[in-house]
Amino acid sequence: MLKEAIYHRPKNNFAYAYDSETLHIRLKVKKGDITKAYLIFGDPYQWEKGEWINSTKPMVLEGTDELFDYWFVEVQPEYRRLRYGFELYSQYERVIYGEMGFKEKDPKTTNFYFCFPFLNEVDVFKAPDWVKETIWYQIFPERFANGNPDLNPEGTLAWGSAEPKVDSFFGGDFEGIIKNIVYLKDLGINGIYFTPIFKAKSNHKYDTIDYFEIDPQFGDKETFKRLVEVCHENGIRVMLDAVFNHSGFYFEAFQDVLKNQEQSQYKDWFHLREFPVKPLPEPNYDTFAFTHAMPKLNTEHPEVKEYLLQVGRYWIEEFDIDGWRLDVANEVDHQFWREFRQVVKSIKPDAYILGEIWHDSMPWLQGDQFDAVMNYPFTQATLDFFAKDEINAEQFGQQLTKVLSNYPKNVNEVAFNLLGSHDTPRILTICKENKEKLKLLFLFQLSFIGTPCIYYGDEVGITGENDPGCRKCMDWNEEEQDLGLLEFVKKVIALRREHAVLGNNGEFTILETNVETNHVIYSKKSDDETILIAINNSNKDVQINLPCDFTDKKGIDLWSKKQIRSSKVELDPFGFSLIQIKEHRHIIQ
Amino acid sequence: MLKEAIYHRPKNNFAYAYDSETLHIRLKVKKGDITKAYLIFGDPYQWEKGEWINSTKPMVLEGTDELFDYWFVEVQPEYRRLRYGFELYSQYERVIYGEMGFKEKDPKTTNFYFCFPFLNEVDVFKAPDWVKETIWYQIFPERFANGNPDLNPEGTLAWGSAEPKVDSFFGGDFEGIIKNIVYLKDLGINGIYFTPIFKAKSNHKYDTIDYFEIDPQFGDKETFKRLVEVCHENGIRVMLDAVFNHSGFYFEAFQDVLKNQEQSQYKDWFHLREFPVKPLPEPNYDTFAFTHAMPKLNTEHPEVKEYLLQVGRYWIEEFDIDGWRLDVANEVDHQFWREFRQVVKSIKPDAYILGEIWHDSMPWLQGDQFDAVMNYPFTQATLDFFAKDEINAEQFGQQLTKVLSNYPKNVNEVAFNLLGSHDTPRILTICKENKEKLKLLFLFQLSFIGTPCIYYGDEVGITGENDPGCRKCMDWNEEEQDLGLLEFVKKVIALRREHAVLGNNGEFTILETNVETNHVIYSKKSDDETILIAINNSNKDVQINLPCDFTDKKGIDLWSKKQIRSSKVELDPFGFSLIQIKEHRHIIQ
Repeated sequence: MLKEAIYHRPKNNFAYAYDSETLHIRLKVKKGDITKAYLIFGDPYQWEKGEWINSTKPMVLEGTDELFDYWFVEVQPEYRRLRYGFELYSQYERVIYGEMGFKEKDPKTTNFYFCFPFLNEVDVFKAPDWVKETIWYQIFPERFANGNPDLNPEGTLAWGSAEPKVDSFFGGDFEGIIKNIVYLKDLGINGIYFTPIFKAKSNHKYDTIDYFEIDPQFGDKETFKRLVEVCHENGIRVMLDAVFNHSGFYFEAFQDVLKNQEQSQYKDWFHLREFPVKPLPEPNYDTFAFTHAMPKLNTEHPEVKEYLLQVGRYWIEEFDIDGWRLDVANEVDHQFWREFRQVVKSIKPDAYILGEIWHDSMPWLQGDQFDAVMNYPFTQATLDFFAKDEINAEQFGQQLTKVLSNYPKNVNEVAFNLLGSHDTPRILTICKENKEKLKLLFLFQLSFIGTPCIYYGDEVGITGENDPGCRKCMDWNEEEQDLGLLEFVKKVIALRREHAVLGNNGEFTILETNVETNHVIYSKKSDDETILIAINNSNKDVQINLPCDFTDKKGIDLWSKKQIRSSKVELDPFGFSLIQIKEHRHIIQ
Repeated sequence: MLKEAIYHRPKNNFAYAYDSETLHIRLKVKKGDITKAYLIFGDPYQWEKGEWINSTKPMVLEGTDELFDYWFVEVQPEYRRLRYGFELYSQYERVIYGEMGFKEKDPKTTNFYFCFPFLNEVDVFKAPDWVKETIWYQIFPERFANGNPDLNPEGTLAWGSAEPKVDSFFGGDFEGIIKNIVYLKDLGINGIYFTPIFKAKSNHKYDTIDYFEIDPQFGDKETFKRLVEVCHENGIRVMLDAVFNHSGFYFEAFQDVLKNQEQSQYKDWFHLREFPVKPLPEPNYDTFAFTHAMPKLNTEHPEVKEYLLQVGRYWIEEFDIDGWRLDVANEVDHQFWREFRQVVKSIKPDAYILGEIWHDSMPWLQGDQFDAVMNYPFTQATLDFFAKDEINAEQFGQQLTKVLSNYPKNVNEVAFNLLGSHDTPRILTICKENKEKLKLLFLFQLSFIGTPCIYYGDEVGITGENDPGCRKCMDWNEEEQDLGLLEFVKKVIALRREHAVLGNNGEFTILETNVETNHVIYSKKSDDETILIAINNSNKDVQINLPCDFTDKKGIDLWSKKQIRSSKVELDPFGFSLIQIKEHRHIIQ
């Protein structure tokens, strides 16, 4: 047994409270090394004749990546306290693994073992329930629809008349969104994430001038209130973008610093390195990246904290928004986010808090800070396989195992699974405009664990390279929209909403990945329903064998509505099959 | 290279802020596998021609345990932001390791790498500076000294007249401590940790009746105030024991529950499983362990929280205590401790918060909860080697590597390093009354990283098995005290206070461990001073070779004050040598 490969440490993705009664425990071992694994567990205080009383429970192999296998088990400790370890079998060996290392025999004493000391409810990671059922749509307000030309900023270009540049304006506004609410409802989404809407100078509004004002090009507070109401009436939640890492250059406090320098009452609001403060040629204060127009806010300063927490409160209290997406969330201090969560949840307990973090985010997802992060590792794996052909089916499966095993299950269920955003090239462009591949992207995204987000216009086939290319105006001309694609996306969304198992109600399991044909087969499975999904990510026909015996059960292809009577299925190039299994007592792995 | 053994994940002992400018980065690899390691690092936003700009810095091998080597490096990122990974060499291979896995070449793109997004000062783990210089002395007040017989509870036994039983009283009190303050000052300690002093029923007082009252057997608030003042006048800090996990059976709120049951206004203060609430034969409410007399407090409940936070505040504000030791700290929710820290530090920023946790405590030592935990892994390694002979010198060295690499350095510097307490047998008893071994324990404890604690009476040779045996009355009869031992302990304490390098000012390095002779040699080293410590943990003479060449430098044995002119040193059975190196330009490893 390769002991050096065995890893476990509690209070993160390896051991966590799934709910107020259940602990999930995961173990990482060398791929293929362990033939059987058991959890050894007991209450820390149950002893008899000087020996700790424990039991065992078998673990299951939940997934595999390039190097490791992941074993999993759940347990509900009667007194909410747990000491535990692992009994591991390889072909030739039996080993007991605990916090203090490896033994041949169970030492019958608790201090050798790992500890999950108490399952306190307040510490359980718990995101709002509605998020699990949400299909997001990301709107970049300047580019979605121009509903009120009176608000157009100076120099506004005719809608869609040109490739967007860094400083173009096309006049998108709230009225435009309200006018198109039926489009969104028909599409089937039930949450909108708006990039920033507060008063700012740029078209993207990430350079806030006033956190308490709507940017006039979008409308006024009345209109925004109406927008939220219209969304809510149509069953759509509203999430705003909070840019708290940095302000804009024209933020009053920063302007005061530039003007009054050391005498400014706001000089501690920023991280100033010297006086006189000057933005050029190089800013001598901390900024977002090296952007002089985005001075980093000192979120440790009590006044700044109070100000920003007030912002967090205001838009919920006054406008009833449902969530905050936090820009550059990883560069703001943890302490600020802890207080932010307390404030937000105290006024709206089911508000969603989503952090923008591109890397491993476990430290922010412990229950005290965010409900979710933007799941770019999901994005990368999915694009690398379907869009870019940079990894094969097997590698894709391994990447998904990594994505899922890297976080607790309750975190994965509300992960913000995007394929693209205002910060990445358009997915159709990444697919080299191959719409069949684009469809597979949507199909996979919408049948995976987590909460998917569609970037405005991807559903009608908008293209574009990275910013500013990916921020083209929404195409409202039905002759230019790809209506076939739109129907496809609507159909997948409708299926996900109709079959809870396609969403977070279903356990995701990879059943087969094939390096030769490049197809994958996975299942989504709940107590009530099982759906097998087979995807052919190649330009050739593929004959697959579903890992399911149809002699004693019925299969229905949810796409074609045809009955399936054989486990042999033929997939077209870039084809797929979504098969609902009607009786699943005897099913598969 | 054994990739499966390579482990790193940021924001814990593997990557943390040591101070507001410095990051420490650690990597775990298979023992002996890696010949050279470099950190690859850069600012996330510094790019040129589409490629991320990074540099490298060599890492050092800081320690070894049974299976792993630990490599270490520190870095001060100019803009407090860091992306980083590792360039690793084995005999035949060169590998780049980052968050996304292993590559042969540096991918020149940040998302492959690990991220420490921003070094925010408020998130830096920071314990009070004074703790690093503190030598603690633990007092169990009922057993230290009886200074005022008028306070003796009914049935009090004559001091030291009997072996203590679970329910014995000997009348120890505050006056007794005040009268013996000179003894403590002479001993050289500068911090006292008192087990609970609040009104309770038992002799140990872990069953609080009233958190705002002193137990009358110890004295009144006036006397306690005087005790704190006397301590402070003598340069001694005062830490109290906060038993917040559970109350005592006779705590007013719990008595109200027993009396009024479902009608009690306090019914949500506890975790009651059903009504009527009853303690016997089995309590039908959550308790500490299965002790019906210790009902677990519902620390999530706002009133309980407010009550206990008020306790935390009161004894600091009114009595100027310097720290809180938190009983059964691991079973109370993290959220409570976060709020507790905020309250405590807001009224006394340099108060020390010490949690009782016996297992791996990283989740409580992230800067938002505790300053330290009781370092039982240190205790175990040290006792296993010196007192019990259960591990040999090499294994001891490996255990110490584990102890140190398991936490950040700033955590280790304030770890509460105890050898015994009211919860363990007396160390002399564990040593089978071998006082030479006992001396080595003290010597090692007092020259290690962290903040040592002496359990009252260990310094004069008190014996005793586990509770109640380990709670004997302090022996004040000089004819029975082991005065030689006392002088020894005083001398080691004095040396630690005189030579900052013996404490936390010195880097601890294991230089040699020998399985045959069972001796260890380690160094404590600062910019100003180096001390080599050699310990012979065997009953035979040992001839050792100090890893130091004395031709161009002077060595002084700090114990005998003799000059050392040769690297050959003879150690008596259970002997030791503490050698200060006077010039250390050309020294050792």
